[in-house]
Amino acid sequence: MATSSRFVASLRRTALSPRASPCIKRIRPVTQVRWTGSTSATSEPHQPDAKGTVKGGPAPAKAVKFTSEMYPEIQRNSKFTNLSEEHVKYFKDMLGSESAVVESFSKDASEDIEPYNSDWMRKYRGHAKLVLKPATTEEVSRILKYCNDNMLAVVPQGGNTGLVGGSVPVFDEIVINLQRMDKIRSFDEVSGILVADAGVILEVADNFLAEKKHIFPLDLGAKGSCQIGGNVATNAGGLRLLRYGSLHGNVLGIEAVLPDGTVIDDLLELRKNNTGYDIKQLFIGGEGTIGIITGISILCPQRSPAVNVAYFGLESFEHAQKAFRAAKNQLSEILSAFEMMDGRTQKLLNKATGKKLPLEGEHPFYCLIETSGSNTDHDSEKLQNFLENVMETEIVSDGVVAQDQTQMGELWSCREGVSEALGHWGGVYKYDLSLPIADMYDLVNDVRDRLTEVGLVGDDDSHPVVDAVGYGHMGDANLHLNVPVRRYDKEVEKQLEPYVYEWVQKKNGSISAEHGLGITKKPYIGYSRSDTMIKLMKQIKNLYDPNGIMNPYKYI
Amino acid sequence: MATSSRFVASLRRTALSPRASPCIKRIRPVTQVRWTGSTSATSEPHQPDAKGTVKGGPAPAKAVKFTSEMYPEIQRNSKFTNLSEEHVKYFKDMLGSESAVVESFSKDASEDIEPYNSDWMRKYRGHAKLVLKPATTEEVSRILKYCNDNMLAVVPQGGNTGLVGGSVPVFDEIVINLQRMDKIRSFDEVSGILVADAGVILEVADNFLAEKKHIFPLDLGAKGSCQIGGNVATNAGGLRLLRYGSLHGNVLGIEAVLPDGTVIDDLLELRKNNTGYDIKQLFIGGEGTIGIITGISILCPQRSPAVNVAYFGLESFEHAQKAFRAAKNQLSEILSAFEMMDGRTQKLLNKATGKKLPLEGEHPFYCLIETSGSNTDHDSEKLQNFLENVMETEIVSDGVVAQDQTQMGELWSCREGVSEALGHWGGVYKYDLSLPIADMYDLVNDVRDRLTEVGLVGDDDSHPVVDAVGYGHMGDANLHLNVPVRRYDKEVEKQLEPYVYEWVQKKNGSISAEHGLGITKKPYIGYSRSDTMIKLMKQIKNLYDPNGIMNPYKYI
Repeated sequence: MATSSRFVASLRRTALSPRASPCIKRIRPVTQVRWTGSTSATSEPHQPDAKGTVKGGPAPAKAVKFTSEMYPEIQRNSKFTNLSEEHVKYFKDMLGSESAVVESFSKDASEDIEPYNSDWMRKYRGHAKLVLKPATTEEVSRILKYCNDNMLAVVPQGGNTGLVGGSVPVFDEIVINLQRMDKIRSFDEVSGILVADAGVILEVADNFLAEKKHIFPLDLGAKGSCQIGGNVATNAGGLRLLRYGSLHGNVLGIEAVLPDGTVIDDLLELRKNNTGYDIKQLFIGGEGTIGIITGISILCPQRSPAVNVAYFGLESFEHAQKAFRAAKNQLSEILSAFEMMDGRTQKLLNKATGKKLPLEGEHPFYCLIETSGSNTDHDSEKLQNFLENVMETEIVSDGVVAQDQTQMGELWSCREGVSEALGHWGGVYKYDLSLPIADMYDLVNDVRDRLTEVGLVGDDDSHPVVDAVGYGHMGDANLHLNVPVRRYDKEVEKQLEPYVYEWVQKKNGSISAEHGLGITKKPYIGYSRSDTMIKLMKQIKNLYDPNGIMNPYKYI
Repeated sequence: MATSSRFVASLRRTALSPRASPCIKRIRPVTQVRWTGSTSATSEPHQPDAKGTVKGGPAPAKAVKFTSEMYPEIQRNSKFTNLSEEHVKYFKDMLGSESAVVESFSKDASEDIEPYNSDWMRKYRGHAKLVLKPATTEEVSRILKYCNDNMLAVVPQGGNTGLVGGSVPVFDEIVINLQRMDKIRSFDEVSGILVADAGVILEVADNFLAEKKHIFPLDLGAKGSCQIGGNVATNAGGLRLLRYGSLHGNVLGIEAVLPDGTVIDDLLELRKNNTGYDIKQLFIGGEGTIGIITGISILCPQRSPAVNVAYFGLESFEHAQKAFRAAKNQLSEILSAFEMMDGRTQKLLNKATGKKLPLEGEHPFYCLIETSGSNTDHDSEKLQNFLENVMETEIVSDGVVAQDQTQMGELWSCREGVSEALGHWGGVYKYDLSLPIADMYDLVNDVRDRLTEVGLVGDDDSHPVVDAVGYGHMGDANLHLNVPVRRYDKEVEKQLEPYVYEWVQKKNGSISAEHGLGITKKPYIGYSRSDTMIKLMKQIKNLYDPNGIMNPYKYI
């Protein structure tokens, strides 16, 4: 009961301005890096040196190896036309403005074009010599029609914040960058429906909505750079999914351009519309392989003025599941995040950064919950009742509740700081997986056992593996399996793959919970989708993009 | 302040058992009938007699005219094979069980087959001589493959509760009825994910979930008969959409059979899965035109133990919009319904049924709101604060709050009773539309003005039109425009159509908010969808059903 009263004593009501939720804002996307091994795991933004040791920050763009060198098995498709002076002239004439065309074809402008050729992780790098920045849907249509007629391959590019290399060219594909399409077209304060250009930055949209006491129904770490069109094209998940659901439910309409220049004008601002196949859904998560999204209409919920954050220790994963059930039951409509970190994750966070953890002692598991609601007093009371209940029933062993925004940030950093901290020893093999909640943590144990059995795990430099740990969005059954290592090692890779994918496949899980396929996961889709589904997907691709010019070498 | 205190005085906390929400249960689907005129409006389940007068209940099945006679412009497609003895024998052998085949081909069994040939509204009637009731997905697959190979047209049929004639044959299509596929396959209490056969009755699924303290994220009047596979195939909207969103967001996976017998096994139980095009979305709202859904996996929310209902009068539609905004803002996460009825609707309800309305005096508009939450005290307090606020700011003129379940039912009946009551004078021209909220009621005024100008509206029998009224799911911008009439009249029809559709088209609304296309709305899709969209839809139809055997003569 001592710990229980600790909850009660520390519980305070915290009202945030509707504008800013710092704990939410601070979250960053899981970062990644590629090493020269064959594994598809993704990791921190550090590149290994010649010896395979990983040190320091991201490599400068020009130091990044070309994707075509890293993946020699991918060959440029000879059906695509090589860029010519005539093509470049055509686009310059069409787009008019100087700022709408970046090219290193007729002149040396490789510095200018480099940011469009490589992703922010410095993991992929293409050979594009032409970047086009249309300002209107009509321009996108004319560009695509010309490219399709002339068999010029293209890559649609939004904020270029993706994690699977989907938004940068592999060879000489023309980059079609949406950044100049950045207008908010309309917002209806009664229905909460926003209509905006695809190139609007997520944070700009959300700040606009904050003034209207609404929020964008999606939040993720890259919000300052990513574009809402890209969010929709990649079906981004993010932090608010547990509460507000997926983009398949929230996007009400899209405007998109097909490879042949056809404009799909389906920007309906209606919650209900049952007039035919919901074709826009194919573009949500289509990763720019069947067309380019140029505008969206989306349902935006009311912004919650009250936010609370709590962090607690638990005995087992079984207890974490019980806590999640209790939170769903008792916090119900105000629960906005339920995150899980195993004890090993928190221990490594402490080791790597020296960060003092919020709870004394060690617990096998930790959870972080966030509530968002319209009434500060009610939410605090609900949270307090919930915490007392889970303490009394011994579901939770110990816990704290943030008393102000600073403390909220402190608690969130125990979750947010993990991804970076795990890179401390050199590198991390990372997997972003969906699994049935009940089975989720078994994978982490199995992987650890497997690596331990063959002697790869240990406390000193003679062992490559530091540990195998798990954390993630428990509310969405989204597990981040992480294997922090001192060095990248073929033996470790052999133990991990295809073992992890086969494990996920057996549980009917997903090998890509929210990051999509891009170039990274293209070869592994078979672990999550049947041959039948893949065949149907290829049919869709061929139907909309018979020439295959849209974002080639990726997806399926 | 007198009226405000009335709110306060009458506000009581009402806790419903999680099992039953009678006010929700009592809601019935908007009923319809067809008359011999050319209009596409839908109405009450009363058929006109020879003089065009409508009296009494639904006509007996055999008195219903065949669809083929009512729509002589629809011709049987001669590419379809006529049913033969050999076909019937094949299906009998395949399905084995007596109860799996109903046929009036080799024997006289027209009484047995009649319920499958006509819809519950007695509005459409087909000529089918064979009904198949597969018990497994494998059987559905074998049936469809055989039909596809032999060019036999089929109609998938669930609970047959649709409103647009989508689930009954037009000519001799074979009915594939899913009622024997009625098993709940699994439920995960942690994630809230239910997996079930398509033929499970919605209410059965919801009762099963109630025991687990969850709800099906969809509720509608036909819940005792309709099947969840049919709900998904028609993208049913219903009462919980405002709160839980559409099936496009909640359905996580489907199992479906394509016309060629291919089984799409995409029954994933994952909230997040970004591995390729989300093909299942095409089947949600596809109305059985590209395949048959045999199973679904769906995310089910926690059931709310606390429910409140309030009813109030307002000065204008502008005030109703303000009230909706205030409800969204102040009731936020607990708002579960926001319904609007104009004063004329409530007056006619009183006239037709003698029902005493909850408020004294007359108000130009009325709204009904429902809250559902996890904490009775909190919800009552939120509701009270909201009501005090809207009274003090004069958004609302007067109001009452239900004190118990009986009163909740009473208040709901002011909304639920409308559809039936409006049929009192003989018939009703009904339109189920989505429109931008701000414009929603203008259509009702415009239609009334239009009918009045030409002298069709009046208080006595010399005028066919009683009034033009509006009500509906304001929270979803779903308007029911109703024109109660004393008799069906070509002049009235001429004034209504295509005027109503053109009006909706101008506002980028939808001519079918939640009822789908079926046979009723097929000719009118052009008012809500562009030629481009229709062309893309036809591509999808041809891709999945190149022989066109699936639910012909309907949809697009």
